[in-house]
Amino acid sequence: MSTHLVRFEPDAKTVQVPSGTLIVEAARQAELEIGQPCGGQGRCGRCVVRVDKGIVRRRSTLRLLPEDVEAGYALACQSVIERDITVFVPPQRAIERRLSSDRSIADITIPDWYDRRLTGIKRFHLSIDPPSMDDQRDDLSRLKTSLKKQHGFTEIKVALTVIKEMGAILRQGNWDVTAVVEIDPKLEDSQEYVRLIRLIPGHVYQDDPLWGAAIDIGTTTVTLWLVDLITGEVKTQISEYNGQINRGEDVISRIVYANREGGRDELQRLILQTVNSLLDSSCKQIQDYEVNPKSIVKMTVAGNSTMIHLFLGIPPENIRLSPFVTTVNDVPEIRAIDIGVNICSDGIVDCLPGVASFVGSDITSGVLSSGMDETPQITLFMDVGTNGEIVLGSREWLVSCACSAGPAFEGAGVRDGMRATRGAIEEIWINGETFEPSYRVIGNVKPKGICGSGLISALAELFMTGVVDKAGNLNSHLQTSRVRMGENGLEYIIARKNETEYGKDIVMTHTDINNLVRAKAAIYAGYAVLADSVGVPIDLIEQMLIGGSFGKYINIEKAIQIGLLPDLPWERFKFLGNTSVRGAYYSLLDKSIRERIQQIASRMTYIELSADNTFYEAFMSALFLPHTEMKNFPTVSLALEEKSLIR
Amino acid sequence: MSTHLVRFEPDAKTVQVPSGTLIVEAARQAELEIGQPCGGQGRCGRCVVRVDKGIVRRRSTLRLLPEDVEAGYALACQSVIERDITVFVPPQRAIERRLSSDRSIADITIPDWYDRRLTGIKRFHLSIDPPSMDDQRDDLSRLKTSLKKQHGFTEIKVALTVIKEMGAILRQGNWDVTAVVEIDPKLEDSQEYVRLIRLIPGHVYQDDPLWGAAIDIGTTTVTLWLVDLITGEVKTQISEYNGQINRGEDVISRIVYANREGGRDELQRLILQTVNSLLDSSCKQIQDYEVNPKSIVKMTVAGNSTMIHLFLGIPPENIRLSPFVTTVNDVPEIRAIDIGVNICSDGIVDCLPGVASFVGSDITSGVLSSGMDETPQITLFMDVGTNGEIVLGSREWLVSCACSAGPAFEGAGVRDGMRATRGAIEEIWINGETFEPSYRVIGNVKPKGICGSGLISALAELFMTGVVDKAGNLNSHLQTSRVRMGENGLEYIIARKNETEYGKDIVMTHTDINNLVRAKAAIYAGYAVLADSVGVPIDLIEQMLIGGSFGKYINIEKAIQIGLLPDLPWERFKFLGNTSVRGAYYSLLDKSIRERIQQIASRMTYIELSADNTFYEAFMSALFLPHTEMKNFPTVSLALEEKSLIR
Repeated sequence: MSTHLVRFEPDAKTVQVPSGTLIVEAARQAELEIGQPCGGQGRCGRCVVRVDKGIVRRRSTLRLLPEDVEAGYALACQSVIERDITVFVPPQRAIERRLSSDRSIADITIPDWYDRRLTGIKRFHLSIDPPSMDDQRDDLSRLKTSLKKQHGFTEIKVALTVIKEMGAILRQGNWDVTAVVEIDPKLEDSQEYVRLIRLIPGHVYQDDPLWGAAIDIGTTTVTLWLVDLITGEVKTQISEYNGQINRGEDVISRIVYANREGGRDELQRLILQTVNSLLDSSCKQIQDYEVNPKSIVKMTVAGNSTMIHLFLGIPPENIRLSPFVTTVNDVPEIRAIDIGVNICSDGIVDCLPGVASFVGSDITSGVLSSGMDETPQITLFMDVGTNGEIVLGSREWLVSCACSAGPAFEGAGVRDGMRATRGAIEEIWINGETFEPSYRVIGNVKPKGICGSGLISALAELFMTGVVDKAGNLNSHLQTSRVRMGENGLEYIIARKNETEYGKDIVMTHTDINNLVRAKAAIYAGYAVLADSVGVPIDLIEQMLIGGSFGKYINIEKAIQIGLLPDLPWERFKFLGNTSVRGAYYSLLDKSIRERIQQIASRMTYIELSADNTFYEAFMSALFLPHTEMKNFPTVSLALEEKSLIR
Repeated sequence: MSTHLVRFEPDAKTVQVPSGTLIVEAARQAELEIGQPCGGQGRCGRCVVRVDKGIVRRRSTLRLLPEDVEAGYALACQSVIERDITVFVPPQRAIERRLSSDRSIADITIPDWYDRRLTGIKRFHLSIDPPSMDDQRDDLSRLKTSLKKQHGFTEIKVALTVIKEMGAILRQGNWDVTAVVEIDPKLEDSQEYVRLIRLIPGHVYQDDPLWGAAIDIGTTTVTLWLVDLITGEVKTQISEYNGQINRGEDVISRIVYANREGGRDELQRLILQTVNSLLDSSCKQIQDYEVNPKSIVKMTVAGNSTMIHLFLGIPPENIRLSPFVTTVNDVPEIRAIDIGVNICSDGIVDCLPGVASFVGSDITSGVLSSGMDETPQITLFMDVGTNGEIVLGSREWLVSCACSAGPAFEGAGVRDGMRATRGAIEEIWINGETFEPSYRVIGNVKPKGICGSGLISALAELFMTGVVDKAGNLNSHLQTSRVRMGENGLEYIIARKNETEYGKDIVMTHTDINNLVRAKAAIYAGYAVLADSVGVPIDLIEQMLIGGSFGKYINIEKAIQIGLLPDLPWERFKFLGNTSVRGAYYSLLDKSIRERIQQIASRMTYIELSADNTFYEAFMSALFLPHTEMKNFPTVSLALEEKSLIR
């Protein structure tokens, strides 16, 4: 058997190993420590190294992005040495940073089409003649004259909120001010009509940031991106649970709550609190500038129709009553002060247009940012949130439907569920012999709970190791102390209290498992019925685009094992992260994007699932792991057969 | 001596009297009671009768309007019988009604140019297709489609406040609704662009009232007219003291108060309370219809610049600081909900355009309704309110100034002062021998206090009878118990406690007299300086138009006696009542009137009195009764000489 030389950098250690040795084994021989939390299963991605000279045979590239593979990265536990190589072992901290960031933070590049004129917002410096006993014109006339003389605007609209502050700002700036105006980008050349949004004392340097915000109001989670409109850059991203969460976990229960005496006002107040708190926090995260929410001049908002109604204080009741109509799908542009959003008083709040009661602007905005409205490929787009909305189509046609999945995949409605932030268990492995778990925690700290991807991972592992059966029941007869009788039935202990942040066991209960199964069944039934309704078999779907902030971190293999995703070749799947907030971000960068979203909304045919029995039947069939019809999940069947675990 | 037959109707009594007998004497002979509260001086107008056959020689027609004289009315105490006559004695109640109505109620005829299309507000009936499972469009789209199909509007603006109520109203009306829209009257034919102001369930009958309000916000008094925009008719008129009155009696002290911590918010809240209370009360006075303020779709507002700033919550501080500029003279149209006026949420609040810090829209609106901007005659227009604003000019030119008169003529800042409502003493006569007063009370009830015209009357009588001297000091050496030492110096008792409503003496104190003298001096100095500044001698003024709600009831003779009005022939004076609210009313009836007011504002040259010493000197000279220069008041000099009372 031939041997090869393996050199490890930056420690400059070289060892000789037989062909077929794994990099982890060679490292051990060189007395180098490479962590393997998942026990060398190639699942946790923590043993990543970079092969700088020579190549290796990769048994698995799970947890590696294609660009990582291209750059030479490999999993040390899955890479077979078949020639002489040089391996770079990254410092452990660098790897942790790679893996430990808040999962809701997306990688965002500024779109190449970005041009600040497209935003429809401009900033002008004005030098205004101060008043004197010989010239007693009022402040507003002076300002208008200056905007006209210096910049050619003839029709200038100024709201009362700006007028109220005007006298003080003009004098504070000693008649030298910066005006932020809204201007129709199509009228850029004529520049006749503008609306004054904000007045700032003094002269603002032209490259200083001009703040905007894009927001996605989800039933469970609200996400905000703070954007500098000068560069187009997203400066901070931040998420919080929707403050309404304890008033009902899905849109229907929120609507019921809104119908109570004072309920609607309360729900509006709660979502405004969440939005305003996100605005505050996002501004505090900005290091280079003093920013406060009042500096933000425009906010684009995407969300499901119920969330938008509640955000604006519009009664949502007809959304849940047949024939299920909203009061408004395409909300006219409003000003922040009209609803109580704590940005600049006269700042623009632009709620993007939706389609129907259960297909709101989170979906139209998502379709836009996914690009499916312009692709020739048959594409299935799904947004995995509390409401599972699904769109099928291409640049030729678009159909959509919605199914209520519940908030389980967002970590809510599950005993130890949490959002995908520091301290959340995001992946779990269970040993098939001992039933002992190992797990990976975001931020590499003591665990506080389990986030969405962790829950999918846990359910898949419990099922694939036989701890949970096809019907979702825990097996109490196994030789393990991990399964025990809890307060409300059987539960599986993922982390014991001495390992956890709060000193309490982290478990998956029977109820949690049930909720997860119901959630995945609703989503599966949704796309199955939708595909069936237009006669497109699921396996002909060329692209499967998955939105939702947690979507990006789903382990496809495990999501297929529980029957959440269809059993298609992995390369057809694309995880897009929060497509809703991304669409809102694009709308913020380019005012005409709104019109494209309007076109998407008007092109999209909405199919009401509740109108017939097919959905209910599909849902009942999907209430098993992975599904009643095992033939729909051939790779899962095969894996179970290999483990002889089909019961 | 010849005798004549006098027949009295409706009692059908006839008496024979010698030629030269007064009608009152003939009536007494016929045993008919005709009241003469003023003791037969021809001043109170209570003895009015109608001469139906024959004619009489009228010694005085004071208190009679020219049209009354034409109709045969005569004062029984002033009419000499010189031939056979038939006299109709009106029932006492009818006379009282003639005299006793609230003095702030004006006689208003609908202008002959009125055309409801000019208002810019229209009402449409809409029959909307209800939603179904086959047509799940949102409520707003349905409404817009209907407005487009049934009425041809292509661009329809709907505010959030209307959207919020829309779902409920559409269903309450069973998809049959009435839309109130704002439309530019100039675009009447194209009808492309409208703004939805209000949605009403069901079909409103086309002649049912459509409510608007015109309002004058005075420093001391706020007046509101409630108008039916269908007919153009003023349905109720109502006045109240401005709720800010205890926070400073003139605009300067209000501005100082507004600068305190929380002061501006408090002043805004107080004026809004007053306005909202006037709205409530005016609606309650409507008998034929159920009206509440939320039915009012438009409100036009006139007021001085400080009042408008405070009403809108705009800091007024620069109004009182050199170089004395406002933040805004021409306020953009705002919606009721933006400031908290309790009319229909999305109703229009149109604050009319003013000229300068101390010449606001009360004056531009007043000039408009007086018609002086279109007359060839040299006209002096003055608005006698807390601020005395004066405009001199004609259709060729207009100059204006302002002087702070204080609220004395509105009955405020005077011990027993009150507004001109039921219970106010409105005219006083003092016997030159006994110094005993008699008086007339609005509503013919026990007196509660003295209103503006009563104060002028009292001061003139006190002066002309020698109870008060040229410098405004009470004479304590007269043989009368009416002048006594009060808590704060000498005072004259007008009504003793047993005669009064509240069981307390009604008096004029030394301080009251001083306040009145200062107020009239400020006004006199104002028009004297203004006339001087443009080189127009006062006696060349061809028309003297007097606005201000109390103005209408001033006794010219007495106002000249105290030196408030210049000593010009009586026929040059015209009392117009509240010209400010009338201008606002015209603007409500015709949207283009606003443009004419804008033109008035831009044509008017404002002269700053505080900029030089001339005003102060003129004011000091006017601090005497009637004036230091007696030659300016020839008729008063003559009267005093006749009474040998020049001291």
